[in-house]
Amino acid sequence: MTEKLTGDAREAALAPLLAAGWAEVSERDAISRTYVFGNFIEAFGFMARAALVAEKMGHHPEWFNVYKTVEVTLSTHDAGGLTALDTRLAAAMDALA
Amino acid sequence: MTEKLTGDAREAALAPLLAAGWAEVSERDAISRTYVFGNFIEAFGFMARAALVAEKMGHHPEWFNVYKTVEVTLSTHDAGGLTALDTRLAAAMDALA
Repeated sequence: MTEKLTGDAREAALAPLLAAGWAEVSERDAISRTYVFGNFIEAFGFMARAALVAEKMGHHPEWFNVYKTVEVTLSTHDAGGLTALDTRLAAAMDALA
Repeated sequence: MTEKLTGDAREAALAPLLAAGWAEVSERDAISRTYVFGNFIEAFGFMARAALVAEKMGHHPEWFNVYKTVEVTLSTHDAGGLTALDTRLAAAMDALA
């Protein structure tokens, strides 16, 4: 779970996320997605729900919020890159958004 | 409230915030502060409380969170710079942190 994704496993895990709107970050082994909501209440409501999921997983996002926009970057610090924890959290956030 | 702070009013409003740990942003008319908490629960708990205050004020922060760290930048978009809304929100966030 906390080993860096490589090869076919990485491709298989990333394919649905890239199709859904996630992108690979160029300078790091990470993925990012920007969510745009209707207003701050909706944006922060999403963050609150995602925060509970992240804390339960023991795996947390890097995220930036301004008003109705939330920019999320996922990577696993301990592994030095993208792991199944990130792809799981990405899918969970998409389900909440 | 939504006019850019200038001159003596700006200095007077900023002095206590700069003393408390806020800094002026170099490239923009904005202030920023980084809060470091004990863990994600504390960091996001702060964000949740600050979000309610911000929504009630009708004035929202730009903020970045990763695990126990929250980086806040305040500026008033409509005014093109720092206003009393920002200094009020800054003081409110300090009181919550």
